[in-house]
This record gives sequence, C-alpha cells and structure tokens, in this order.
Amino acid sequence: MASFAIMGFGTVGSGVAEVLRMNADPIAEKLGEPLSLKYILDVRDLSATPYADVAVKDFAVLENDPALDVVVESIGGAKVALEFTRRALMAGKHVVTSNKELVAAHGKELLAIAREKNVNYLFEASVGGGIPVLRPLFQCLAGNRIEEIVGILNGTTNYILTRMVKGGIPFDEALKEAQAKGYAEQNPAADVEGLDAGRKICILSDLAWGKEVLPEKITTQGISGLDLKDVAIASAAGYRVKLLGRALKLADGRQAAYVAPHLVPESCPVAGVDDVFNAIMIRGNAVGDVMFYGRGAGDLPTASAVMGDIIDALQHRSKRRDLGWSESAELAGLDELSMPWYLRGGSALTAIGCKVLSESDGAFLTGSMSAKEAKALAEKLGAAALLPVLQ
Amino acid sequence: MASFAIMGFGTVGSGVAEVLRMNADPIAEKLGEPLSLKYILDVRDLSATPYADVAVKDFAVLENDPALDVVVESIGGAKVALEFTRRALMAGKHVVTSNKELVAAHGKELLAIAREKNVNYLFEASVGGGIPVLRPLFQCLAGNRIEEIVGILNGTTNYILTRMVKGGIPFDEALKEAQAKGYAEQNPAADVEGLDAGRKICILSDLAWGKEVLPEKITTQGISGLDLKDVAIASAAGYRVKLLGRALKLADGRQAAYVAPHLVPESCPVAGVDDVFNAIMIRGNAVGDVMFYGRGAGDLPTASAVMGDIIDALQHRSKRRDLGWSESAELAGLDELSMPWYLRGGSALTAIGCKVLSESDGAFLTGSMSAKEAKALAEKLGAAALLPVLQ
Repeated sequence: MASFAIMGFGTVGSGVAEVLRMNADPIAEKLGEPLSLKYILDVRDLSATPYADVAVKDFAVLENDPALDVVVESIGGAKVALEFTRRALMAGKHVVTSNKELVAAHGKELLAIAREKNVNYLFEASVGGGIPVLRPLFQCLAGNRIEEIVGILNGTTNYILTRMVKGGIPFDEALKEAQAKGYAEQNPAADVEGLDAGRKICILSDLAWGKEVLPEKITTQGISGLDLKDVAIASAAGYRVKLLGRALKLADGRQAAYVAPHLVPESCPVAGVDDVFNAIMIRGNAVGDVMFYGRGAGDLPTASAVMGDIIDALQHRSKRRDLGWSESAELAGLDELSMPWYLRGGSALTAIGCKVLSESDGAFLTGSMSAKEAKALAEKLGAAALLPVLQ
Repeated sequence: MASFAIMGFGTVGSGVAEVLRMNADPIAEKLGEPLSLKYILDVRDLSATPYADVAVKDFAVLENDPALDVVVESIGGAKVALEFTRRALMAGKHVVTSNKELVAAHGKELLAIAREKNVNYLFEASVGGGIPVLRPLFQCLAGNRIEEIVGILNGTTNYILTRMVKGGIPFDEALKEAQAKGYAEQNPAADVEGLDAGRKICILSDLAWGKEVLPEKITTQGISGLDLKDVAIASAAGYRVKLLGRALKLADGRQAAYVAPHLVPESCPVAGVDDVFNAIMIRGNAVGDVMFYGRGAGDLPTASAVMGDIIDALQHRSKRRDLGWSESAELAGLDELSMPWYLRGGSALTAIGCKVLSESDGAFLTGSMSAKEAKALAEKLGAAALLPVLQ
C-alpha cells in the first residue's frame, strides 16, 4: 500500500482527492498496489466532509510518519508552503506540487534538498495545469538543444483576450465577465499584469537550460493597458493579440525571458488557442516546433498532473529523477532582443520595410529591431501603441 | 561511457547519428557521461562515410558485446527487425525503435521479453514522429481513465488533404505533388489507404488501455476514394476533411478503433493542423482534452524521439519502465459506433435532425446513428458519399 498526504485542501487539493476517488482502480493498476490518501492537512474544519477521518491540523504528523511516501503541497504562496516543503523533503518524503510561485522562486533550493535526500520534487502541474509539458520537455526532448519556448500560459488573460477579439468588448468589461464566470479572481493583478505567466515561463526556462531565471529578473507586461482598437486592427490584418511568455537561448549563450501581449499571425498554431485554454510551443534543434495544448487550470485538470507526478514519484521511489537547475542564468534584457513591432499613431510612416495594417489609424509593423530601437521610434513618432510581433 | 548501436542506416538511423553529432554536449550533460555510437549495422557499404570505423555487417557483433547498452532498431518491417529485436533484448540490451509496423504487430511479445530480461523496449518515435505523445499518455496522464484518442497520424495524407482543401486540386494530382516533394513514396498504399495511421492508432490503444489491438482487426479506410466535391462542400460549411485514427473506450468496457476520413468542425483544434504536421488529441476523465502537435515524420524529428528514448533507457538502466499490454482487447466494430454522418446525393432529405450543407448537391449531416444505420440510409437514398463526422 502506497500512501500520500495532501497539504492545503483548496481547489487543487480537493481535486486530487476527487481524482483518486474517480480513478482508484487504474491508478492501483499502474502502481501495482493501491494508493491511499492517508492525511489531509488543512486549517479548515473537515469533520463534516467524507475526509473527516484523514483530516489533521499538525504538520508534524506527516513529517513523523515513516510510512508516508508522498506529500502533495497545494497550499500556495511561498511562506508556509516553503517551510513545509523543506521539512517534508528533509524527512525523506517525495513532494509533488502545483505551486508555481514556490517553484519559480525556490525551486533551486528545494531540488537541491531533494537531491541530497534522494527523493523527488515534482511540479508538472505548476505550468499549463493538466497539460503534459515539463516532463516532455526534460525527457522526450532531452536529445535536443532547446532554442525557444513560447506559450499562452494564463487561462484568465486568454479568456479576456478572446472576448476582446471575438466579442469586441473592451478590457474592463471582459475582465468583469471573467470574474463573474469564476475565471478571474476579485484581485486579478497576478493574472492580468502577467505575473502568473512570468512565473511559468521562468520554470520552463529553468528546466530547458538548467539555469535559474527568477521572476523578478524578467520584464513582465500584462494586458490591462491593451486598447481594443489595436486588437481590432490586428484581427482585421490577420493577427491575434495573445499574452505570451517567451524564453530564448541567444547565439552568445545568454538567455532571455519576458511576458508581453504579442501580435501572433493567424497561421501560427498558438493564434487559434482561445478561451481558458493554454498552449506551449517548444522549438528544439532536432524536433522543430512541437506544441502542447489543453486546459491550463481547473481542479481536475491540475489534479491530473499532480496524480501523474505522484505515480511517477512512487515508481521512482528508490531513484530520484535527475532534475534541477543551478546558478543564475546570464540574462539579456528585452531591450536587446530583435523582432518586428506593431506601432499605432505614427505620424509619418516613412521607415523602410514597414507593413501598413491600417492607413487611417497609422498602424503598421516595423522590420526587425530591438525593443530599445522600437521604443525610440515610437517616441519619435508619438505612437499610441507599441507591441511585439511573434514571427 | 554509455554506448549504443544503430541497426539500419536509412532516414531514421542516419538522423539519430546526426542528432548525436549536433547535440553530443547537452546529451552527455543529461546522462552524466558521454554517449558513444559504437556500431552501425547495415548491409550498405559505409566505408566512404564518416561512420566507416563503426560500420559492421554482422549482428552477432552487437549481440555479443557485453559493454553495449542500447540498440536502435531502424531497419523497418517485421522480419529481420523482429529477429534482431528479439535477440538484442534476449542479450540484455535496451532496444529503442521508430518501427510502428513491428510494435503494432509484435509489441506484446517484445515487451514481455523486455520484462523478463529487465531491459527497456521503447518506441516513442513510432507514433507522431518527434511529437512527445506516448510517454505523456502513459506517464503524465497515468491518473486518468483515458476515454478517447483522435489523431492526424499520417503526414503524407494530411499534406494531400491540405492541398485538396486549400488548393482545390483532386486527389490524384495532390498525390503526385506529394511524391514530387518526397512526402509520399512511389508506392503510396500504406499511407493513402490508412494502414500507417492504423498501426499508430493501435499502438496508442495498446498503451491507453493495456490490451492488444492488432492492425488487421480494425477497419481502415483511406483517402484514395475521396471526391474533391465533398471536400469543397465540407469546407464551405465550416468543416475540414481529415484522415483520423480514432480509438475509444465504450461504456460496456469494450474498445473500438478505426481509421477513416472525417468531417472535422473548424472549431476543433485538430481541424487547423495542416500540411505534413500531425496532432494527437487525448481525452482523459480528469484532464479533459489535451493535444500534442508537431512534425510527424522526417529524419531529425523522428531521431529526436529516438534520442529521448535512448537517454531514458540509460537513465533506467537498472530499472525497467513498467510498460506493456496483455491479452487481446474485446473490440466493438465500426458498425456499432454512433456518430453523425455526412451524406451526399440523397434524393429525399426527410430524415429528422438532418442539417443541410448543400441543397443543390443533396449534401447533409445526419443525427447520431451507427455506421450500420448510416450505410443502410446511404443505400436507401442512393447516396454518392458517406463520411463520419467528428463531434
């Protein structure tokens, strides 16, 4: 009998319990033994739930149970979650999490503890919800040099953008609609300002190139300042506006990562990914472009990824997955990256190589230039909007 | 120093050697030791190539080298490849392959030998070329009950269909174009008649539900009989015609698998997958729909998947992946499956629940009905075309 505990019985934690209830048989078949939910650690009173007999309030119960194999951390945040994850790993438990904030900020340290204790710290659910992407990246694509990762990493903002593009409604209204549907929180800052997508692109970078990229080191631009006018001009010209996390390996060996709304040509598979769906495109030097698509959030999809990790941890009980990242990556800033740009409101469209999208609005695409040059051009022309274009 | 051999130095075999040449450093970093290509077994004379010093003509050299860890089988077919795979596994070598014909027909036996010898038999490259899909299916989605798998599994036919849909050219011409571009072989039967897609949907079924589905047991309809007229009517009505492999788990516990051209609504992510690209959509009861997209063929993409498996096999040298399928699945025939159908040439569109696509051509979609009922209806109406519709 393999056993695990859930710490934090919110959306993800209760989803994991539900997935075990739904799929106990196939899970036991995969493991060759039944999987038992031994403890649920939560400050809430669970005595009126079907989980009353496994509810505990003291972390030490988990920590001191030598027969407990795996701990799921679905507390969220980077305070209690950090302390309990450290202690669980130190106590020789495998830890599985969906907590992108913790992994992005403290993954390096936690993976080092896991290595020392010969246990697994796994976090497939931290990026793309239920979409398998981290394991394919570090395992199936292990024979590649990863060149670039581009993803729609946040379902809330993708829903809002889809409503702006297809419904023609402005940001504020679309946000209210997302809140009413439960897709956006009452304080939506982490989503709409791109912080959530930033944490996820950092985790993808960490795994792709083995060097730490901290969220606070990268440029993060959200969608709250996005004008419906630009969304409409882009649509009419065959582009969709998408909030993308993007990470690249540069020719000089440095890396770059940032989050910003981009114009994406309709021919790119990422352009058609709508509503709360996520998609991550990875470019390897052997495989070319591969894309992973699915629900990037929600209780059961996220719990699906957590359960996959629990099974993997138990199958590798005696052998740790060789996973981790080391010293800080040497980062190039967004100002150094070259790409085409969308500008609106330029008074004189004289730049060579520009493609006019709307004559009346003075909206056009520049040739490839650095963010620094694009900003200078926008300022010179008195432009009202400046957005990068995905090539 | 870890070492491997390549058996069969054609497109895939030479691609694997090239990926090692391109990416030796990151591969060694993943493995913690360099990876050495120790032998290439091929009947061709390789003395004028850079691989002259590793070329061998006698399989026994590989079989009898106790220091050889992994053998890549890229011979193709199910004769010599079967014998050498059996013997390599018996000799305690891990075997990695892209050979869908062999895996679909003899995977059960070969995985049983691998289990007995505690080595790995891995075949990520056999489905979807470079796209990570088998490992995500059996590992990342291990916490799900898999409900359905639908995929564009053959790049050649997807290229031909894309030309028919977007170029408006008939099948014969599109096939000639594909042959001229090297996408289709001179004898294109295995691709255009759906046999290749059939082998792949069988492998996906085998892994999803752990029971053997042999290609000769499933209905396989290709695209050679497809009329451009139906492709055009479907396009005008918001559907794309795609050759899909489809596998399902029925409510009564039986399974079904088949290959046929389908009408796919444009809103389905699979509809937008064009040219030689492949995409596989998997539905799990927790995760919902996830999709995997990329190049389904080609030397380097396929070699990317082979190299991922080599690295995995070496990382699991002492522990076999628990992979395999057992007795034959109980199969329901296509005649028992219910879905909507596209009919053209019906003389009287009186059926309730039908959706007219083209009045002048007598083309319409039926409500959900079994293939048997649809065939009877088509016969009764004297219909000129009958195709399933993906819901």
